[in-house]
Amino acid sequence: MMDIIKYPKKEDWGRLLDRPLQDTGTLDNIVLPVLADIKMNGDPAVRKYIRKFEGACPDNLMVTEDEIKEGVRNTYPELKNAIDRAYRNIESFHRAQYKGVKRITTAKGITCWQRSIAIEKVGIYVPGGSAPLFSTVLMLAIPANIAECNDIIICSPAGPDGKLHPAILYAAYISGVSKIFKIGGAQAIAAMAYGTETVPKVYKIFGPGNQYIMAAKQIVAMHDVAIDMPAGPSEVMVIADSDTPPEFAAVDLLSQAEHGPDSQVMLLTTHPEIIKRVSREVKRQLELLPRREIACKSLENSKMIVLSDDDQIMEMVNEYAPEHLIIATKNAEELAEKVINAGSVFIGIYTPESAGDYISGTNHTLPTNGYAKFYNGVNLDNYVKKITFQQITEEGILNSGNSIMIMAEAEKLDAHKNAAGLRLKYLRKEK
Amino acid sequence: MMDIIKYPKKEDWGRLLDRPLQDTGTLDNIVLPVLADIKMNGDPAVRKYIRKFEGACPDNLMVTEDEIKEGVRNTYPELKNAIDRAYRNIESFHRAQYKGVKRITTAKGITCWQRSIAIEKVGIYVPGGSAPLFSTVLMLAIPANIAECNDIIICSPAGPDGKLHPAILYAAYISGVSKIFKIGGAQAIAAMAYGTETVPKVYKIFGPGNQYIMAAKQIVAMHDVAIDMPAGPSEVMVIADSDTPPEFAAVDLLSQAEHGPDSQVMLLTTHPEIIKRVSREVKRQLELLPRREIACKSLENSKMIVLSDDDQIMEMVNEYAPEHLIIATKNAEELAEKVINAGSVFIGIYTPESAGDYISGTNHTLPTNGYAKFYNGVNLDNYVKKITFQQITEEGILNSGNSIMIMAEAEKLDAHKNAAGLRLKYLRKEK
Repeated sequence: MMDIIKYPKKEDWGRLLDRPLQDTGTLDNIVLPVLADIKMNGDPAVRKYIRKFEGACPDNLMVTEDEIKEGVRNTYPELKNAIDRAYRNIESFHRAQYKGVKRITTAKGITCWQRSIAIEKVGIYVPGGSAPLFSTVLMLAIPANIAECNDIIICSPAGPDGKLHPAILYAAYISGVSKIFKIGGAQAIAAMAYGTETVPKVYKIFGPGNQYIMAAKQIVAMHDVAIDMPAGPSEVMVIADSDTPPEFAAVDLLSQAEHGPDSQVMLLTTHPEIIKRVSREVKRQLELLPRREIACKSLENSKMIVLSDDDQIMEMVNEYAPEHLIIATKNAEELAEKVINAGSVFIGIYTPESAGDYISGTNHTLPTNGYAKFYNGVNLDNYVKKITFQQITEEGILNSGNSIMIMAEAEKLDAHKNAAGLRLKYLRKEK
Repeated sequence: MMDIIKYPKKEDWGRLLDRPLQDTGTLDNIVLPVLADIKMNGDPAVRKYIRKFEGACPDNLMVTEDEIKEGVRNTYPELKNAIDRAYRNIESFHRAQYKGVKRITTAKGITCWQRSIAIEKVGIYVPGGSAPLFSTVLMLAIPANIAECNDIIICSPAGPDGKLHPAILYAAYISGVSKIFKIGGAQAIAAMAYGTETVPKVYKIFGPGNQYIMAAKQIVAMHDVAIDMPAGPSEVMVIADSDTPPEFAAVDLLSQAEHGPDSQVMLLTTHPEIIKRVSREVKRQLELLPRREIACKSLENSKMIVLSDDDQIMEMVNEYAPEHLIIATKNAEELAEKVINAGSVFIGIYTPESAGDYISGTNHTLPTNGYAKFYNGVNLDNYVKKITFQQITEEGILNSGNSIMIMAEAEKLDAHKNAAGLRLKYLRKEK
């Protein structure tokens, strides 16, 4: 089912590590008119596209207080308890990322510092579909709350009953979300980017979604808002050796494969003998999976690769730049030190990727499609702007003013030069 | 020359604070074919566009060791000394932003941490034109060097003599730049985004430039590389009171206005009586400026606004979200505490904006066009990915495995559930 490749030549790595191709050009053509219409016409256009793409449009786009209370009530205690645990872990990991003011005296009389200030308004997209992704709410709203963003809004398509899943409402409720709207698709992205009569404009949009959502996010990111990151299909790379229980390797591959038919899963090993055992386990477990059709398709894009040593393994990891990297080998900690490009790393046989999706505390919104070479997953930084401040004393400008003048003159910016020059003159006259 | 507006009504603020409009649609049409051609054809296409847009094409696109040595030699000692000072200050401010590994135990047996790892290959665009912007080299290469990026390359168009300015070469030399290429315009952005026979592909592109550069950066940022931030014309907001020497306010306005005809400068005050004095100073100083034509045009987009109290002032600042904010009032420190949206803030009458451009140590690559609401200026974070790691012990999975299972089941992801379940089973069997 998964391709098995043994000791590939270096010149074939590029092709081997290629992601399944996505055609993005046609998406823009579908999404652009939706964005333009909503920018111009607000709520009526939003309702039009909900009817067109999602089916019935709820009378009330905004979730009421009563609906939230109902959701909180209808989330069963066991799930509430699990969500609360996840909340605490995510909260403590993200709060530790907070960095206070740091004042630096860079030169005599010059003090500089950086202050992290929350982005005032953020929007979170929570996909609809078969499963209620309350974990997305936790991952994207908790750091917004820690950062102290003023407005934290959510858009998510309502189900056929016109409601959002109770667990989504519960997660939103405990994470300090201000407003929730029953809007899905590109119309949700447009509503948050431009604002409508009902939906407030936000400054930054977070959250996963299908290709239309992603295309819409990238278009609005060009001039109107920031986004968390571009995204493609989800992926995992698992490094296994003879110490890795084959059922663990198999289930970790499958838990990525079940995300979507375009997910990609890869197994790397220097132990050719484990390939057969892991394959057998994949086949066995797959039969029992409700989402086996999806997983099956995704396994067709996927590969088991045998390499000759750990250096090659880590070279391939860093070239592929996986969203999730599971290192289930005996020397997992040692290999983890050599990771240069990855979204999130799972060390040891008791650290499945699903731990990171829910409970460990790290964020599960991660760079896909090789973007881990230049983006990281969502963290507290994504919710703040780091504004710089500087303050120069009389002594400071007397000491450094001349350097400003020399450099400004060399860059042919005379007013820049005069800005220092006039201050020096003023101070010298005073004395 | 500058519009003077006294006590505007709140409903007029939006219009008052509008940026000069930019038409970006037509730019894409010019830039897209250039990008596509270079992606497909590499160096020959790069050369073709250099000839088309810049004039003669140098035989050697890459700057040689000898040329760098010559540049270092030809930078006069006074300027070298000023650049060295700037280097030290920028270095010390950006190095202080480094954040080490922080291990957090989020729950029993679960350890999470974040590691900052350099983006391996970064490219810096340094605009050509009338002035050699060596300060851009310092601002964008020093943090790359602190982050320990492997490849730090520069593209900048050669002058009519086929050379880059000595000070650019000197700044690149001391900042640890690996390679320098004589390429400007959209062709430079394409070469760095896709790689050619001569120019290595990078993962992230930094640097200012004209509208074509910006359009090209935004297009390649959609799928191929990261960029520092979108950008528009430069801008400053100055807050002055009766304590601000009018010549200081005037020169600070002019030093922004001289950047380009589309720059915008704003003066805010609660002291109507200073408007006349500052205006007179602007007029007087303008006459003496070599770049007065540019500054004059920019002043036409610019405004002096009288407001009734400090709260209004800070509300307007935060609504405009200026790239540079100079607070030259008596209570500057107090007002600085209230800044929510700005790129960089200059406190007190001895802190001109040109100090931040060159010497203070803060970065001068800052968000324009109101983007300070959701972006910050370049800092060390922009050169690293913060990869997350997690490690779960037997105790950890025994303690938290059930929560993973409950949440995965609620999200209908069975393999995710099994990933925890199989591990629990395995451990329970062992005991």
